[in-house]
Amino acid sequence: MRSGFLIDCLQYANWSEKIFCQLREGGVDAIHVTIAYHENFRETVLNFEQWNRWFEQYPDLIMKGLWASDIERARETGRTAVFFGFQNPSPIEDDIGLVEIVHTLGARFMQLTYNNQSLLATGCYESEDTGLTRMGKQVVKEMNRVGLVVDMSHSADRSTIEAAEFSERPIAITHANPHDWSPALRNKRDKVIRAVTEHGGMLGFSVYPHHLKDKSACTLTSFCEMIARTADTYGVEHLGIGTDLCQDQPDSIVEWMRVGRWTKQIDYGEGSASAPGFPDMPDWFKDNRDFGNIEAGLRATGMNETEIAGIMGGNWHRFFAENFTPMGASHG
Amino acid sequence: MRSGFLIDCLQYANWSEKIFCQLREGGVDAIHVTIAYHENFRETVLNFEQWNRWFEQYPDLIMKGLWASDIERARETGRTAVFFGFQNPSPIEDDIGLVEIVHTLGARFMQLTYNNQSLLATGCYESEDTGLTRMGKQVVKEMNRVGLVVDMSHSADRSTIEAAEFSERPIAITHANPHDWSPALRNKRDKVIRAVTEHGGMLGFSVYPHHLKDKSACTLTSFCEMIARTADTYGVEHLGIGTDLCQDQPDSIVEWMRVGRWTKQIDYGEGSASAPGFPDMPDWFKDNRDFGNIEAGLRATGMNETEIAGIMGGNWHRFFAENFTPMGASHG
Repeated sequence: MRSGFLIDCLQYANWSEKIFCQLREGGVDAIHVTIAYHENFRETVLNFEQWNRWFEQYPDLIMKGLWASDIERARETGRTAVFFGFQNPSPIEDDIGLVEIVHTLGARFMQLTYNNQSLLATGCYESEDTGLTRMGKQVVKEMNRVGLVVDMSHSADRSTIEAAEFSERPIAITHANPHDWSPALRNKRDKVIRAVTEHGGMLGFSVYPHHLKDKSACTLTSFCEMIARTADTYGVEHLGIGTDLCQDQPDSIVEWMRVGRWTKQIDYGEGSASAPGFPDMPDWFKDNRDFGNIEAGLRATGMNETEIAGIMGGNWHRFFAENFTPMGASHG
Repeated sequence: MRSGFLIDCLQYANWSEKIFCQLREGGVDAIHVTIAYHENFRETVLNFEQWNRWFEQYPDLIMKGLWASDIERARETGRTAVFFGFQNPSPIEDDIGLVEIVHTLGARFMQLTYNNQSLLATGCYESEDTGLTRMGKQVVKEMNRVGLVVDMSHSADRSTIEAAEFSERPIAITHANPHDWSPALRNKRDKVIRAVTEHGGMLGFSVYPHHLKDKSACTLTSFCEMIARTADTYGVEHLGIGTDLCQDQPDSIVEWMRVGRWTKQIDYGEGSASAPGFPDMPDWFKDNRDFGNIEAGLRATGMNETEIAGIMGGNWHRFFAENFTPMGASHG
């Protein structure tokens, strides 16, 4: 068993017993899973219900994650703790009272936007970025109060910087890479990463091919050297993994992610008309059994063991411990 | 401070700071409050949200109750623990997955019916009682699994007896009196109370005037002697208080309780065309400051202090401790 924690802060797989077993084979202590892209509150509750069924069916493989201490409990009992998040604020609809309700149900991360303008902020695909809205500021305060982390992975620059500065607790970019390594629209510019990390926030490195330099052909060395340089620039303690693994999903799912119900036209997002589906994963990261490759790659860059343990999970563990509990409370 | 616990297992007041202060003046350690009569899931969530606001506004008077141990915590900090329940299964709609969801949100009691036939069982105002339905049996099993107590206060006889026998955990009649003391449709016949108590269940005595002998004119002595006789017959450990206090509610609320959205006609329920509103409370129980009257009345019947402490709260405390946690789990 790895001495430190192994935590992946973003996955959206087509969940199955096979994948739960792979999580165990890979020694993954905790994952943050997306349970809403465009779902309204009631639809999101159906997704919580589906996970309750899996927890009941596979009690030896997975358990519900609510607090950082659940990661220790999962580790001690040979299971993976599953933490929930939303990539859109659609689950809270226009009702700020739902922020505490979804936290009670187990939500721990919520993106203020998913690509488009939301009620709260601006997404990274809009041409105009107006920053946090009136409701956005109220909701960030309420998220701070109850312990629901602001995630700006799919948000536009100004909105992200404003959220980092306005939020009383650190925020996260759970899954993206630096824009200067790979200039994808979803990757983050220096000033954005700086605003997030200078306020105590976290960046999780993605292995989703559209976020990688040379996409599916990206080398492990290129990826790990990018991580080492990012650590030098912003501080290793602010970095973790957020693979964005979408294992076993049919291409229809990437269409749902991109199009939801907001348009009648096809939007290819990071893809294109000639490549509308999920891209192939790099050969060094196919599924949850491959985290050892990233760990070895980091070691090859010359990072020390403490730094590597932080990136592989220790930093997320600390962040979870500090940011999931209600303000002023402690849940161990 | 009273040496034992003071717990009222059913109230539906028009909540306000005034009533929260009266709970403290009366030394009430815990209450079970109704948060749904006919509400669907989303509407019930709005009621959870309203209580979250009250917990945030009045942190020195009230706190959310989830486990029996919260009653001790409330007592130690001079507050009243508020436990939630539904008088109808309408909040779970036709979706068994919502049983665990509402338990996670804090629901601890759910009636299988409110007067009428439901998807689960038959209410006490129907002319035909067909017992537990197919879905009813599945839902009782699921309620047993997660720790949501079956409450049959408004159910018909056969349905109640079947629920008591089918349920793997004890069930409750949170608010009703024996039919042979006051033959109201809502009061419970001997065979019903026997089925519930012989399976470890509880009966909470109501002071709602329509459930009292001589209604609003019922004497404290008559009420307390009825309790003493009930203890002799079924065992004092199965008895508690469930006042059904509807303090400060306008008469429009009793109409909502009776009519909901299921009919376009007025149904007077336990009232009548000439007395359609809330009846006057007996002079010895007007609000939460009056539990001492009941306690003194029980003492006057010759019951001993241990028996009285059990009825005033000790028995509900034990029942909460044994029945709110998921099967096989413990939450202290």
